[in-house]
Amino acid sequence: MNNDTICAPATPAGGALGIIRISGSGAIPAVDALFHAANGHPLASRAGYSLSYGTLQSDGGETIDDVVVSLFRAPHSYTGEDSVEITCHGSRYIINKVLEELVQCGCRMARAGEFTERAFLNGKMDLSQAEAVADLIASSNRATHQIAISQLRGQFSSELVILRQQLLHLTTLLELELDFSDHEDLEFADRSELLTLANTIYTHITQLTHSFKIGQALKQGIPVAIVGKTNVGKSTLLNRLLHDDRAIVSNIHGTTRDTIEDTIDIRGITFRFIDTAGIRQTTDEVEQMGISRTYSAIDKARIVLWLIDEMPTEPEITDITSRCEGRSIIPVWNKTDINSAFCYKMATLSVIPISAKTGQGIPELESAILAAADIPEISSNDVIVTNVRHFEALTHAQDNLQRILEGLHRNISGDLISEDLRLVLSDLSEITGGLITSQETLSNIFSHFCVGK
Amino acid sequence: MNNDTICAPATPAGGALGIIRISGSGAIPAVDALFHAANGHPLASRAGYSLSYGTLQSDGGETIDDVVVSLFRAPHSYTGEDSVEITCHGSRYIINKVLEELVQCGCRMARAGEFTERAFLNGKMDLSQAEAVADLIASSNRATHQIAISQLRGQFSSELVILRQQLLHLTTLLELELDFSDHEDLEFADRSELLTLANTIYTHITQLTHSFKIGQALKQGIPVAIVGKTNVGKSTLLNRLLHDDRAIVSNIHGTTRDTIEDTIDIRGITFRFIDTAGIRQTTDEVEQMGISRTYSAIDKARIVLWLIDEMPTEPEITDITSRCEGRSIIPVWNKTDINSAFCYKMATLSVIPISAKTGQGIPELESAILAAADIPEISSNDVIVTNVRHFEALTHAQDNLQRILEGLHRNISGDLISEDLRLVLSDLSEITGGLITSQETLSNIFSHFCVGK
Repeated sequence: MNNDTICAPATPAGGALGIIRISGSGAIPAVDALFHAANGHPLASRAGYSLSYGTLQSDGGETIDDVVVSLFRAPHSYTGEDSVEITCHGSRYIINKVLEELVQCGCRMARAGEFTERAFLNGKMDLSQAEAVADLIASSNRATHQIAISQLRGQFSSELVILRQQLLHLTTLLELELDFSDHEDLEFADRSELLTLANTIYTHITQLTHSFKIGQALKQGIPVAIVGKTNVGKSTLLNRLLHDDRAIVSNIHGTTRDTIEDTIDIRGITFRFIDTAGIRQTTDEVEQMGISRTYSAIDKARIVLWLIDEMPTEPEITDITSRCEGRSIIPVWNKTDINSAFCYKMATLSVIPISAKTGQGIPELESAILAAADIPEISSNDVIVTNVRHFEALTHAQDNLQRILEGLHRNISGDLISEDLRLVLSDLSEITGGLITSQETLSNIFSHFCVGK
Repeated sequence: MNNDTICAPATPAGGALGIIRISGSGAIPAVDALFHAANGHPLASRAGYSLSYGTLQSDGGETIDDVVVSLFRAPHSYTGEDSVEITCHGSRYIINKVLEELVQCGCRMARAGEFTERAFLNGKMDLSQAEAVADLIASSNRATHQIAISQLRGQFSSELVILRQQLLHLTTLLELELDFSDHEDLEFADRSELLTLANTIYTHITQLTHSFKIGQALKQGIPVAIVGKTNVGKSTLLNRLLHDDRAIVSNIHGTTRDTIEDTIDIRGITFRFIDTAGIRQTTDEVEQMGISRTYSAIDKARIVLWLIDEMPTEPEITDITSRCEGRSIIPVWNKTDINSAFCYKMATLSVIPISAKTGQGIPELESAILAAADIPEISSNDVIVTNVRHFEALTHAQDNLQRILEGLHRNISGDLISEDLRLVLSDLSEITGGLITSQETLSNIFSHFCVGK
């Protein structure tokens, strides 16, 4: 196991406060070497889950900062090891200085994700929960946040436990069949029960693999294209949609939006406008809808906003409808402020009348976009697969189950089937990180974490 | 006093962890409304300086995050009020969500610096210490950090207490003089003691105002200009100096250098290269040293690195020496790797031989730059004035003391002098924020803080 003590900053520098995390058997002595508690009691004498106020002093006796120190004793900590969190002022100089001193006291700078890796290795959480921690930190909207919380709280792990129990039950039935394999007439009777159970498991796994599509859409944002003729108001509409997406607590220093600006959040779901740079730049150049740039935007989109300000011709309607096959198309009639004559229906399509300029009709358009996304309401009890690694393991399990089902149909010998069953069990245990998880897999997972987690 | 409860993020979003601060009489009930402790004990039942682990749930019962909560009970907290710090995961979504819920529970978003303002108003620190908190957070090198720590720990306040005692002693002596004012012969005897004391105070205040120059240089970085003929290697030298300034803990994610790139740290002191963008861009254009751009760089510099690769003529030496009057000039002989024939002395100037290309001589050059800066070694016991507000109050006090000294010399009546003494006392108490500090002054000071402090 790990015998060394690791340290890392857990917050970016530049705020009012900063947190430095230390974990390992040497955590308490290392901090005690620097920390002078105001009440004179070293950490070594304090109970877990206590706070101490005092100063940090360097080896040379120089005061580094006034700090508050949180103490967690093994196994009641995030990592399961003795852990200390130093809350200091948020200056980069101070954070670096404290880390330097900790390294002097025998700590080592933690690798990315190493605290969570230790939590996993010490049995505080399984691998899918550990991965949920990274997702939680990265969550940027209500939906991805709820999925990560669900996974962190072990909902996904619980589903896998159920699947595992069903698979073990299937194994038992198969072994029973093998024991009675000399009684040829018994074999066929059992197979129908085996088939039913295998089908149930297959359906369950298929539900999970299907949820990955939703999971990916939520994680990456649902791609939306705005198409339409020149001067129909594509840029104005985009700006209007971006502008209307106000975070409730948006006036806080340090909560400015990320640089990816062309996304909007509608009731917790993120929509991503594709090729919008193109829209902005080429407003004047694009003469007709029928150019390749627009088509490629449609190809990448899941939802197409077709902006019009006059009645399109039949060929135009046919053209756009065939171009958008497999996608949701929302015809949007713009400029209702200057042109009140507009249609509400166009062939099979419902038209949303708006004024991108005044904002009229925008709430209705947002509702239509949300409805077109067809994403179920996500709660923290839902299991939705968002992780590629989990998806791959589940797909693998699905393939192996497919072979089992075929085997059962084709009356293949039970020992061959139980070989495939073992593979399915191993596929699923890879997700939670069962008995054997290679160091390579772990490094792969945790290297995508941020430092300090 | 403040009866409302304030909340704010104390760390930037985007790290592994984030801290949300809450302070005020409603802090504990507000957090208890959201927090569900794993051990079932609400914060209200817990002692101060304790940690609790549990989950935060929204009003609607939605899980927001797994958190650790720090509890501080009045008056034993930073602000002196009941305070809670929530350590959650560092996602912007989570931090905003928690703040929204706190606002729902009756908290109000804190203004910049409001926690420290409350600490001041509740007598936890004086005004100069409160200002040191902002300086500490902004400190970016050893020197500014040590000065801020010194001020936070009240070294500056102690000096002001001494000055105040001396001024009160002076007042007593003056009053004594007034009591005996009918005895004309006594007056003259006392005045010499008064003069000595006033002179001592004047010298002390002058030392403090003088330290402001050092304080400003340390805070803003000492301006350095690199001048020299075309192709003498100015850009190479600049890159070499920037490159050699490696922070010890530089490989941590999130500790990348600020965007102001053209500064270097030599043993805790920051040097700022002025007009270096100019140097980089105009290497080919600058034909001679004698252009206005170079002269303006020299004007702004405190230290001038004069880069040469051949023996300058007498007029050139005279020219640069007169141009650099009042500044430290360091002649640097570059390209020792290809030209080993160089001089060590040039008129009264010592020449530093270097190779910007190979790095030879760079440590010696850095030592020379540091020596030219003539900054005393700063320790956390030193009092150096860095704050413009303090400098202005001290300058004011100095002016008033000057008038007192003149009055004593000119044998002006004691009651007029004691009027000036009251002014000096009021000047000094403005620094620590004595009896009367206007709300305007406070707003002015604390609005420059970051949110969450």
